[in-house]
Amino acid sequence: MIPSPAPIEAVSQRLASFLDTRAREWSGFGPEATVFVENAASTLSGGKRLRARFCVTGWQAVADHGDAPKTPSGDVLAAAAALEIFHAAALVHDDIIDNSDTRRGRPAAHRALEAEHTASGWAGSAEAFGRSAAILLGDLLVAWSDDLLEDGLRDAPHAAGARDVYGLMRREVTVGQFLDIAEEAAFVTAPDAEHAERALRVASLKSARYSIQHPLLLGGALAGADAAQSAALSAFGHPLGLAFQLRDDVLGVFGDSAVTGKPSGDDLREGKRTVLVAYTREALGPAERRTFDALIGDPTLDAAQVAAAQETIAASGALTRVEGLIDAYADEADRALRDTPLAAGPVEALRALARDATARAS
Amino acid sequence: MIPSPAPIEAVSQRLASFLDTRAREWSGFGPEATVFVENAASTLSGGKRLRARFCVTGWQAVADHGDAPKTPSGDVLAAAAALEIFHAAALVHDDIIDNSDTRRGRPAAHRALEAEHTASGWAGSAEAFGRSAAILLGDLLVAWSDDLLEDGLRDAPHAAGARDVYGLMRREVTVGQFLDIAEEAAFVTAPDAEHAERALRVASLKSARYSIQHPLLLGGALAGADAAQSAALSAFGHPLGLAFQLRDDVLGVFGDSAVTGKPSGDDLREGKRTVLVAYTREALGPAERRTFDALIGDPTLDAAQVAAAQETIAASGALTRVEGLIDAYADEADRALRDTPLAAGPVEALRALARDATARAS
Repeated sequence: MIPSPAPIEAVSQRLASFLDTRAREWSGFGPEATVFVENAASTLSGGKRLRARFCVTGWQAVADHGDAPKTPSGDVLAAAAALEIFHAAALVHDDIIDNSDTRRGRPAAHRALEAEHTASGWAGSAEAFGRSAAILLGDLLVAWSDDLLEDGLRDAPHAAGARDVYGLMRREVTVGQFLDIAEEAAFVTAPDAEHAERALRVASLKSARYSIQHPLLLGGALAGADAAQSAALSAFGHPLGLAFQLRDDVLGVFGDSAVTGKPSGDDLREGKRTVLVAYTREALGPAERRTFDALIGDPTLDAAQVAAAQETIAASGALTRVEGLIDAYADEADRALRDTPLAAGPVEALRALARDATARAS
Repeated sequence: MIPSPAPIEAVSQRLASFLDTRAREWSGFGPEATVFVENAASTLSGGKRLRARFCVTGWQAVADHGDAPKTPSGDVLAAAAALEIFHAAALVHDDIIDNSDTRRGRPAAHRALEAEHTASGWAGSAEAFGRSAAILLGDLLVAWSDDLLEDGLRDAPHAAGARDVYGLMRREVTVGQFLDIAEEAAFVTAPDAEHAERALRVASLKSARYSIQHPLLLGGALAGADAAQSAALSAFGHPLGLAFQLRDDVLGVFGDSAVTGKPSGDDLREGKRTVLVAYTREALGPAERRTFDALIGDPTLDAAQVAAAQETIAASGALTRVEGLIDAYADEADRALRDTPLAAGPVEALRALARDATARAS
């Protein structure tokens, strides 16, 4: 008997076979179509498959409750792979918006498409072409994510509930992303004392709910979770997701570029209005705050300026405060897993995923 | 008894009630979320509702066959409204890509969001904010279109077939849009003799199949169309869609800006590689072709230069050739409606829609 692959391997296989089908669909449409479809597929390589892992483990936590461990069903493997495609789409659009040159240690999609233009000797601005083509590339990936989800849901017993979770997730993350970029511009018109709360609201929508809570609920829904099981997954997933985003905020300022695959201090150059920045500004006097504000969002910051901003953030006590918040949210998530109507083995797997998400260096 | 509204009115009502629900969903998330959701909703105002009309009429052509006229069902009204939302999303991204300032006589979404930034006194570049926010606005509209489609499909008897049509439509239009912008850059590396054929392939994907054939098939699928009925809708819809796009190409060069709502000669400034442009270049000698090529894709063209390009296109015989092609495709579409297994009343309605689509001035 051939042993079943580990669940995350099975998700990767489902993803690969889906991408093969898509490549074949466009093989007769000329070299430009091939360039487009191949670039779309290559956005799926790498990454931690965080959302897929939470989705499959959420499914197992419900499906295995009071029962022997089961092999994940086709619908949850497709849904988990669809989450990864949707996330790739979000990153493609995000990298255009943030003017990011790299993603997962490789050129961002708009840069890769810009390079295709240059290499092909095409007419016009390669840079403008790269951006425009990447808008459409993200759109194609969104379409693919739906196709794969629906492919899995065709004969699924709990399709309607899964669609509801997926739809809500998409609306929330998109509004959350808008609030995130709006905050980079609108913070000047909001009272300083509200900045941290506003940053947490963005973190809830575009990270906590999007990256962890909804993937868990999607997996749970496909396994037929009852209200108590969904509530337990949410009570664990939401605080963990906040801790995950706060860790991301710390890495965006203090992370080692060799480990994160992004330039050190990138969040500072982009002007992200994180809880870390809000706490720093709360602790500064008016003159220091003006100096600090002049650094945040300046795309030309050099290494010395990044170091100065890091120093200000650490000395203000904001870093310690955010680390405390990460611990508190991680504890809340951990406590939510006690005495739940979820299967014991998958609960241990959720605890391991939680440690990875909050104690990571990349 | 209250009479049923005309089908297209019923679609508009479905759309309006959906947008109301979406606005309420975000009412507690602060003024920035409201700005975002209101701007998304306002992209739905105006427009000819072409895709919704073909969808509902495709449904009627199947549902009423051999039977009395029926009131369109909830699933087809939702699907028709979803097509309009999806199209609004495509236009939002298209207007960023084409740097278009206006749409349907109003500011394009990225310009409207730029204006919100300016009016709010926010920090940073209003123009960059407008573009970034409009990428996300298009993404939100895509999510909404799926939500509305799925809302309608919840208890629909033919949901799976409808999803297949919708998914294929989305993949094809996105690749078609990519091929369209790629052609503006890649035409220099393709043999001149292939340009018209390449332009027709783009027109098939991003117009003929997207705007007419798939909306018809979506409506037909929801009414339970058999293979012969779907084939009849396709045999009508595809050539009509090509004629529709060729009419669009002519209007993009020769259209009256007061009627089209877009600046006259806009397609020339954008450098669109249409059949009209391909035919013109085929007819020109090398020196004239170089002069013509220098005009196409120059965003700074003034009225005199637009007039010179129009003159070249008309004098080359390309305009007459394209008008001949429009007539031929329109005839082919009309012939496809003879002796079909479709209901007679809706077939007459399809003929009227076909006349509107090919003989229009805007």
